Amino acid sequence: MADLFTVLTPREAWATLEPHLHPIGRTEVTATTDALGRVLAEDTHAPADLPHFARSAMDGYAVRAEDTHGATEGLPAYLKVAGEVLMGRPASVRLSLGEAALIHTGGMLPEQADAVVMVENTRSVDATMIEVVRPVAKGENVIQIGEDIAKGELLLPRRSVLRPQDIGSLLSLGVTKVSVFQKVKVALIPTGDELVPPETEPGPGQIRNTSAFALAALAAKAGAIPIVMDIARDNYESLKATAQKALELADMVVVSAGSSVSTRDLTARVIDSLGKPGVLVHGVSLRPGKPTILASVGRKPVFGLPGNPASAMITFGVFVTPAIHRLSGCRQPPQRFSVKARLTRNIPSAAGREDYVPVKIEERDGELHAEPIFGKSNLLFAMIQADGLAKVPLDKGGMMAGEWVEISLF
Amino acid sequence: MADLFTVLTPREAWATLEPHLHPIGRTEVTATTDALGRVLAEDTHAPADLPHFARSAMDGYAVRAEDTHGATEGLPAYLKVAGEVLMGRPASVRLSLGEAALIHTGGMLPEQADAVVMVENTRSVDATMIEVVRPVAKGENVIQIGEDIAKGELLLPRRSVLRPQDIGSLLSLGVTKVSVFQKVKVALIPTGDELVPPETEPGPGQIRNTSAFALAALAAKAGAIPIVMDIARDNYESLKATAQKALELADMVVVSAGSSVSTRDLTARVIDSLGKPGVLVHGVSLRPGKPTILASVGRKPVFGLPGNPASAMITFGVFVTPAIHRLSGCRQPPQRFSVKARLTRNIPSAAGREDYVPVKIEERDGELHAEPIFGKSNLLFAMIQADGLAKVPLDKGGMMAGEWVEISLF
Repeated sequence: MADLFTVLTPREAWATLEPHLHPIGRTEVTATTDALGRVLAEDTHAPADLPHFARSAMDGYAVRAEDTHGATEGLPAYLKVAGEVLMGRPASVRLSLGEAALIHTGGMLPEQADAVVMVENTRSVDATMIEVVRPVAKGENVIQIGEDIAKGELLLPRRSVLRPQDIGSLLSLGVTKVSVFQKVKVALIPTGDELVPPETEPGPGQIRNTSAFALAALAAKAGAIPIVMDIARDNYESLKATAQKALELADMVVVSAGSSVSTRDLTARVIDSLGKPGVLVHGVSLRPGKPTILASVGRKPVFGLPGNPASAMITFGVFVTPAIHRLSGCRQPPQRFSVKARLTRNIPSAAGREDYVPVKIEERDGELHAEPIFGKSNLLFAMIQADGLAKVPLDKGGMMAGEWVEISLF
Repeated sequence: MADLFTVLTPREAWATLEPHLHPIGRTEVTATTDALGRVLAEDTHAPADLPHFARSAMDGYAVRAEDTHGATEGLPAYLKVAGEVLMGRPASVRLSLGEAALIHTGGMLPEQADAVVMVENTRSVDATMIEVVRPVAKGENVIQIGEDIAKGELLLPRRSVLRPQDIGSLLSLGVTKVSVFQKVKVALIPTGDELVPPETEPGPGQIRNTSAFALAALAAKAGAIPIVMDIARDNYESLKATAQKALELADMVVVSAGSSVSTRDLTARVIDSLGKPGVLVHGVSLRPGKPTILASVGRKPVFGLPGNPASAMITFGVFVTPAIHRLSGCRQPPQRFSVKARLTRNIPSAAGREDYVPVKIEERDGELHAEPIFGKSNLLFAMIQADGLAKVPLDKGGMMAGEWVEISLF
């Protein structure tokens, strides 16, 4: 068990947790059309050339390039139109010397042709004769066999997160089913003697369970399957029983513990009782989120987050979302590039601490401006007003109005 | 019917289409826990104060502030500990003058208390007595009734896209069901004599239908329900019959037409035959995407996009995604802020044309760099390599290496 409150920097904390994060590796087969956002489990190579025939990239005439050499406006090349290439059909036209075939974008190049003259560079003489006013080189305006992708080439590596263009590309090669990693299951444990379920009217001293559902939505957004557990009470037996069940059901467990010192310690004790290595990090130089617990039980990561819903969401974004991506097996998480905006007001902070402040973003004169929303005790409603979170780096004792700040958008 | 190829700028084209975009307005009721990403159909006001009792923001002692006035390290205030406030219970402790109650973060303030002294600012004298070494002001470390949100206050306006924090906030107030706008249905019509379904082995001259599925994934990403129609053939009757069926099934129709001039004209003719006002824009100063058609039939927008999958995806992002957001009724589309990156190479363009170029993004020294991926005829595989699209504005005749460019991320 790690020392209580040996506070690490967020980077150190992540580095401590990281060796304990293993992709879950379970796979399933799904229809490619249903695979948006899923993580590919196998290298996928092109099973065929694409295109599998030489195609015209333009509307015009399929020609032998040499028949157009030297053609100019003043001295055009005259070509006989031998026919038309119909879309979706084998190119049945045969070209003899000095002949051309009418062809449409995407049409199959006749065997004897090696280039396409754009229609704009031709003039019609009569029904069977055209003038070509500019020469074409061999291969001009032609998409060659395998030019988009050659048979056997790596189309998408294992661990790619499938985007619309990836889905399209797989289908263009006839890959209608793909093996993907199963979604990561994340159990969320609400804890607190004061909590009641959302559908219950809270009595004096009670509040509704909110964090677990906000975190469940964040987990879903990160590509995981959230499982919201029943509310655990602020005692060892209740939390331990719930956490054990959660570890059976899920690949990862997130406890949103109460914010008092005693419930945080309880969470750490329970995690340590569940298995090795137990608590790895207890305390991070992060605001909000100082009491964050990072742990691992067997091969399953376990997190203890602050009970305050806003603080819980922010620390979830800092640690749990990247951990979900890691367990999902994805190579590069989506939305990994952050937006930068100019601060409209100073943000006080302390050097040696990373701060996340909810901000409202406005675009003015093509520049993004971030207006910090300061609120007492990280009220959830500041998070509703906000478009994202501004990050004050560890080494800065606050940031000044006018400085550029990194924003993770909601 | 608009003049053929009176090319408009993208901004003019959108301004022409925009008056024809009407939110679909159909609503449904869903569980709040299932409402992530949905668009709220009604203003939602807080049905109760949150919190509905004064809560402690800290671990410490609930006190009357006046009992601590003037307290210092050297001359502390001595307070008698009258009891402990248990979490989730009414505060049953009654405080007399000179008394304090042990309280935890989130605990209910006893009626007679008006502030909380942080435990760090107290010392224990014996089991029933503490020293307070710093005074607190009235209200200090207390979250007042209604401070997060007051009863009747607007929690979330109609047309909000629900994010994790919004879900949490609704549940915190007991709003377990919400009325949301139904998802927009988008029909996608693949067109072309050369197309075969993805599961079919294409013969010479044939290719698999790809665009419609890539566009379906884009529609799903934009929050819509995609409906992929059967392949329409390159003739008036086939396309018209398919388009009529699509208009019955969906709120919006997207035709990914062949790229040849004849199929583009066919699409425009069919759209005009379906109803008023018909084609609004035919031709946009956009690359790729010049032959884009924007139209409206009755109150339903209809789009004709290039047949090339990469071009179709890019024009979809420029026009169809914003149109889906408009029809969905959302106030502010998610991901409305773009990322900026520094170009690593020149991008040639022509003034008077807006260009979109696939780019690979790399982070170096805290700055994003965008490497253009140039490819013949917008091959789909350039889109696989890319992390996003760089936009070369209309008024620029290309952009230079080192310049900042706006990126829409995939």
